[in-house]
Amino acid sequence: MARRSRRGRDAINWRHPGRVVVAGFAVGTAIGTALLMLPFATASGEATDLLTAWFTAVSAICVTGLVVVDTPTYWSGFGEGVILGLIQIGGLGVMTLASVLALLVARRLGMRMQLFAQTETKALGLGDVRRVVAGVIRLSLTMEAAVAVLLAVRFAWRYDEPFWDAVYLGVFHAISAYNNAGFALYSDSLISFATDPFILVPIIVAVVVGGLGFPVISELLRRRLRRGKPWSLHTRVTVLTYGALLVVGSVAVTLTEWWNPKTLGPLDLHHKLLVGLSHGVMPRTAGFNSLDLAHFEPTTLLINDVLMFIGGGSAGTAGGIKVGTFALLAFVILAEIRGQPTVHVLGRRLPADAQRQALTVALLAVGVVMTATVALLAVSSFALDQVLFEVISAFGTVGLSTGITAKIPAVGQLILIALMFIGRLGPITMASALALRERPRRYELPEERPVVG
Amino acid sequence: MARRSRRGRDAINWRHPGRVVVAGFAVGTAIGTALLMLPFATASGEATDLLTAWFTAVSAICVTGLVVVDTPTYWSGFGEGVILGLIQIGGLGVMTLASVLALLVARRLGMRMQLFAQTETKALGLGDVRRVVAGVIRLSLTMEAAVAVLLAVRFAWRYDEPFWDAVYLGVFHAISAYNNAGFALYSDSLISFATDPFILVPIIVAVVVGGLGFPVISELLRRRLRRGKPWSLHTRVTVLTYGALLVVGSVAVTLTEWWNPKTLGPLDLHHKLLVGLSHGVMPRTAGFNSLDLAHFEPTTLLINDVLMFIGGGSAGTAGGIKVGTFALLAFVILAEIRGQPTVHVLGRRLPADAQRQALTVALLAVGVVMTATVALLAVSSFALDQVLFEVISAFGTVGLSTGITAKIPAVGQLILIALMFIGRLGPITMASALALRERPRRYELPEERPVVG
Ligand SMILES: [K+]
Ligand SMILES: [K+]
Repeated sequence: MARRSRRGRDAINWRHPGRVVVAGFAVGTAIGTALLMLPFATASGEATDLLTAWFTAVSAICVTGLVVVDTPTYWSGFGEGVILGLIQIGGLGVMTLASVLALLVARRLGMRMQLFAQTETKALGLGDVRRVVAGVIRLSLTMEAAVAVLLAVRFAWRYDEPFWDAVYLGVFHAISAYNNAGFALYSDSLISFATDPFILVPIIVAVVVGGLGFPVISELLRRRLRRGKPWSLHTRVTVLTYGALLVVGSVAVTLTEWWNPKTLGPLDLHHKLLVGLSHGVMPRTAGFNSLDLAHFEPTTLLINDVLMFIGGGSAGTAGGIKVGTFALLAFVILAEIRGQPTVHVLGRRLPADAQRQALTVALLAVGVVMTATVALLAVSSFALDQVLFEVISAFGTVGLSTGITAKIPAVGQLILIALMFIGRLGPITMASALALRERPRRYELPEERPVVG
Repeated sequence: MARRSRRGRDAINWRHPGRVVVAGFAVGTAIGTALLMLPFATASGEATDLLTAWFTAVSAICVTGLVVVDTPTYWSGFGEGVILGLIQIGGLGVMTLASVLALLVARRLGMRMQLFAQTETKALGLGDVRRVVAGVIRLSLTMEAAVAVLLAVRFAWRYDEPFWDAVYLGVFHAISAYNNAGFALYSDSLISFATDPFILVPIIVAVVVGGLGFPVISELLRRRLRRGKPWSLHTRVTVLTYGALLVVGSVAVTLTEWWNPKTLGPLDLHHKLLVGLSHGVMPRTAGFNSLDLAHFEPTTLLINDVLMFIGGGSAGTAGGIKVGTFALLAFVILAEIRGQPTVHVLGRRLPADAQRQALTVALLAVGVVMTATVALLAVSSFALDQVLFEVISAFGTVGLSTGITAKIPAVGQLILIALMFIGRLGPITMASALALRERPRRYELPEERPVVG
């Protein structure tokens, strides 16, 4: 049994797990693009050009939600089905692969990982992978089904949709929400439902559960049964940071848009708060909007830029550099300011190499975003606030837009395609590649200290 | 003698050297503000309001160069003299204090510091401080005098200025350039001299010498005499990075503005290159401009944002997070990507605590810039590209502006005042405070690794 599991392990190229992930996404994108180019994928029956199909396929499989054509009017039912399939595959794929990679890192480094009960082995077997896949699928389908039912009931009961239409709308938006994909079957996203808590709240719950990430949700579900043991560091950091950013985002959007006559201004108090809350959740990279972002104050856009860049939880359907990476850097700075030689977080010590990996992921992300913004500014005629928002939305796989996506020239849309791909797979594969790598240095040079600051 | 030097050392509060620096700048600002509020400080003879005088005094002593009133037409000769005095005090002050702090850090940590020949002592005596002060003053006055003579000759010979006017213009611009202050006695800065290399080149040289920093210049001057010994790590890193950013900045501005009819467009080839070079130098936080930034492409502005944020050399007259801090982080990322457990730079190993200090300085700077940009967007009606440029120009003590400084409401100008102060003193005092501090942790917690990315 042990022998068979070792052979199974060797069959996958574990030394470069990132390549498997990237190859999988490339194949999925190619198939999705080909299917979307078929004439009967569109409502008009005309074949779609390569760039539009490619952009849509990447946006769907990377669960971003940026669109160059209007989803409900441009695509046929078949086209929408392809998009929904790509979202589901992309979401399940990233959740599974990121969880397996995190488990692999934990095992290799001999750390406790809270996906399963503590095991003694330092290697990862096929059995572990199967349990992750089964867990992810079980969690995803359960959540999606529950939210789909709630939404379908509301669509049928309140909006008088025929039964099967209500079911279809419920399933589509549940899958899109849980996978933080942001695709909607309404041309104005969720703006028409801005004041309907029975639509917004199930969607917010699906977004948060998908966005916290499988390791966190899986531990929370198991812990509920066996009380007394403390949560893992990763779960505590993720829940606290995700929650804190949700509050900061909601309060900031509510305050900065309170008097804006084109957004929150006309709403009454409790609808202001509901919409404010939903717009605090969405930059955790879900990408639905219940307000028109083209009318947002520049202040709100910039605050959203920061929140979208940070993103959601690791090994979930959210994007960005991840709340864990952000929190880890914040704790490093706090320790440095306090003059502590090692970094203590909630009663645990952070390994030095994890600090350097967080730094690397965050600063490379800044570099990618700045480079892409400069490039997109150069090839388009939009203002910095719109372009920066679009770039971070693509990189963070958020899908919110001030409305410029379709108007960006082809070369700019290619930049967005690259950003979605890099943003979806970059932080995950880079962090695990960094952690898993052999460290071959066999000599040391004399130390010398340059001046800092 | 050793005893006397130890007593002298105790007279200064060495445990919090940053406080001495901040107090000195506060006192200088207060005196400068009071002098600028006197009626005969203005050309019109009317007294200046507190905010305008305060803003100007801070901009001068922090060698920034942002202005809310037009320097040559608003201030009298006395007012200009006060500004020039504040620039000289601010420039000498920062250069001296930052050099002393860097020396203090090096001594405390037992590192070699290339300001003087290697000494055995780990403590810093009054004699060391005197030698730094003498060295800084000698270097500054020599450079300023040389550039002043060159400029005065050109002003008298080519622009037919009377003798004393030419001398005054030469001295003012030489001091302003060497201290990377960016104050000019022409309402359009150096735009009228955009095609005159005999004005631009001496100014560029003064900017670079002041901006590389005293430790680097001092080592370069001494090394020229005694060949064979390698440069220190700090000097090599600073010269390489400063040079690389100068090339990147010049090429980027030249390319992005090449066809812009309101900037480089109308110039012929070699003037395009000269002006491009000068605008590659100025974001190393000098703040003169020979093109009108209000007409820059958004792409150019954003590239300048990045360059201004990085700034110039440590312990010089330039601002920003410093090229050394930037390079150090780049080398950390490079080492991480290559899978090297320690960071090797040009044949030397970087201490782990210096890496954390660079990270802290850089990320806190990002935090300050983002917070100030959000605040300034909220209180003014300018676009993101203008506001971000203004904020980074103030924080990096650059002094370049798209022309909005005077139009920003009072509360926004107070934000800029705070930014100039924080930007001038923050990175220097923080980096040394972090390095000099006692590290009191006496227990260790168990290690646990959260998921990164
Ligand atoms: K999304
Ligand atoms: K300056």
